[in-house]
Amino acid sequence: MIPTPFYLIDEARLLENMRKIERLRERSGAKALLALKCFATWSAFDIMRPYMDGTTSSSLFELRLGREKFGRETHAYSVAWSDGEIDEAISYADKIIFNSLSQLDRFGEKAAHIERGLRLNPRFSTSGFDLADPARPFSRLGEWDLARLEQAMDRISGVMIHYNCENADFALFDQQLSRIEAEFGEVLKRLDWVSLGGGIHFTGEGYPLDDLADRLKRFSETYGVQVYLEPGEASITQSASLEVSVLDILDNGKKIAIVDSSIEAHMLDLLIYRETAKLPQTGTHDYQIAGKTCLAGDIFGDARFEAPLQIGDRISIADAAGYTMVKKNWFNGVNMPAIAIRRADGSIDRIREFTYEDYLSSLS
Amino acid sequence: MIPTPFYLIDEARLLENMRKIERLRERSGAKALLALKCFATWSAFDIMRPYMDGTTSSSLFELRLGREKFGRETHAYSVAWSDGEIDEAISYADKIIFNSLSQLDRFGEKAAHIERGLRLNPRFSTSGFDLADPARPFSRLGEWDLARLEQAMDRISGVMIHYNCENADFALFDQQLSRIEAEFGEVLKRLDWVSLGGGIHFTGEGYPLDDLADRLKRFSETYGVQVYLEPGEASITQSASLEVSVLDILDNGKKIAIVDSSIEAHMLDLLIYRETAKLPQTGTHDYQIAGKTCLAGDIFGDARFEAPLQIGDRISIADAAGYTMVKKNWFNGVNMPAIAIRRADGSIDRIREFTYEDYLSSLS
Repeated sequence: MIPTPFYLIDEARLLENMRKIERLRERSGAKALLALKCFATWSAFDIMRPYMDGTTSSSLFELRLGREKFGRETHAYSVAWSDGEIDEAISYADKIIFNSLSQLDRFGEKAAHIERGLRLNPRFSTSGFDLADPARPFSRLGEWDLARLEQAMDRISGVMIHYNCENADFALFDQQLSRIEAEFGEVLKRLDWVSLGGGIHFTGEGYPLDDLADRLKRFSETYGVQVYLEPGEASITQSASLEVSVLDILDNGKKIAIVDSSIEAHMLDLLIYRETAKLPQTGTHDYQIAGKTCLAGDIFGDARFEAPLQIGDRISIADAAGYTMVKKNWFNGVNMPAIAIRRADGSIDRIREFTYEDYLSSLS
Repeated sequence: MIPTPFYLIDEARLLENMRKIERLRERSGAKALLALKCFATWSAFDIMRPYMDGTTSSSLFELRLGREKFGRETHAYSVAWSDGEIDEAISYADKIIFNSLSQLDRFGEKAAHIERGLRLNPRFSTSGFDLADPARPFSRLGEWDLARLEQAMDRISGVMIHYNCENADFALFDQQLSRIEAEFGEVLKRLDWVSLGGGIHFTGEGYPLDDLADRLKRFSETYGVQVYLEPGEASITQSASLEVSVLDILDNGKKIAIVDSSIEAHMLDLLIYRETAKLPQTGTHDYQIAGKTCLAGDIFGDARFEAPLQIGDRISIADAAGYTMVKKNWFNGVNMPAIAIRRADGSIDRIREFTYEDYLSSLS
């Protein structure tokens, strides 16, 4: 029995996503690269590698991780490369995608022996959060001016366009892709590859996967480009939980169960985006599930249970794979959740646990 | 020359805060414990130890760090202790402060050989953020009901009352302390010690330090208690910067300088509380200073400079000691800033740098 807290990756559920990705790749001809910014737990890469074409990255370290631990095709992207890291970055990359024309000008020559691309910002997106909206006013993410794109054309063989954010609406995707075709079609025709980025929630329940595949295939054929997708959340959605235990139960006008974890430390996006966790909702016993840090708002959300909670009870917080382990931190010195994988045969491997020494060495 | 990014702790400025703490302690008789949740860079403890009485904590790991690296008086507090950690926690603690009556009931007996306390929540605070307000509705932080406090009185020798949040207003502090006296005075008289927590911004420029000292002394004498303060931000305010370099300069209707850091990864509270960093504001050349992660809202804020920025220019982001290093994380795989100390003689010691191997071992 692994002591809580721990992230529990479920191999069988991860494989369900992988099979959807495989189907999409086969039917559409698109390639799928894991976006490491969302999920980089490399012990799970052996499960994912047969179904995906490689990885994409947002920094030198992610890039190296992709090259060394995942292998296959490795895309390098960063909002800004530094002089000190560019040579190493190029050494790992199959393709390097520059965020701006000025970065291409600065480093393009060094990367002339590999494929080079540029980030294209279509100036619209599906993001509901200004914070995460790459098309927000004065966005620093990519180029959109056709004259500036033209200056890059003799050096690049493709573009990366990331504008979807948890977009589960195929009709919206179709419509926005048509808008890209209308506005940038002449540019796209002159390229060899186009990455449509991540954020398409195509592994979700009920998503019209074949419609997406057919649309991507049509796009690919119209412009004569190899299409790439960069699924992050779509790769690992619903494939892990955060397992916690109840440490204390309070009743201050509302029943509160304090658990051995924290949104700020272990599921940071709940705090940043003011969202609530996916908690049990069956039964008539209501509790607010709260973390153990000093933060007053360290609250996972409201839950319901079949029976009254007791100290020591275990609670499973669903859908905890994406943007969790990659952002965990030592806030309050609360121990980090271990990382475990439930294998297809039901056995559980604990692949990493964290100790006081890890906390100590996070500082100095 | 240390490569950016790095946190730069300034010993001379840290000592200015320490001398204010020393003066407050001497004049008031209060003891001052460093709140490790705010700042736990233990290489700086040698500078701080002569001026402070010890540490307080919000978890087992912080507690152990306080005991082993700072020494002196060590207070143990946690929103909820677990069965598996309580014995170890007690072994490090001079005093243990329980968050709830139920935690005192569960673990009080084990801790009977050391001093025990309870967190008292006065149900008001100076917090401007609901997220960080310990007095928010249904707060899980501490007890307030007099009948419940009474049930603890034969087991505790003190209480911890944390209700100030960056409170720079002495009149407000005075008024709220009077309210605590009016509502809880009968309880306080029967105790040996009272911690008034952290959040009093008494090391700030122009704070009436002697008035605070006199008020604390009067409080101490009226109730016959040893007063404790738990300065976090007040201990280290203005004593460190985050040193970054410009990697790219864009002009998308607004001049943007992208630097080799990130608010989400390295100054997380700017993102959580939607605040802006303290940036240079002298000159006529305006830039938005942005981080290098994929997050559209990874923006430090607007700055002004005497001359146009160039790639490679260094920018110093002020007041970067509190709640920064303790919360840094590997978002986007962006390398963590090194940690350095500028000694009083001007020399700079790099005390920790982070590498790809640290990133790799943050996952598994």
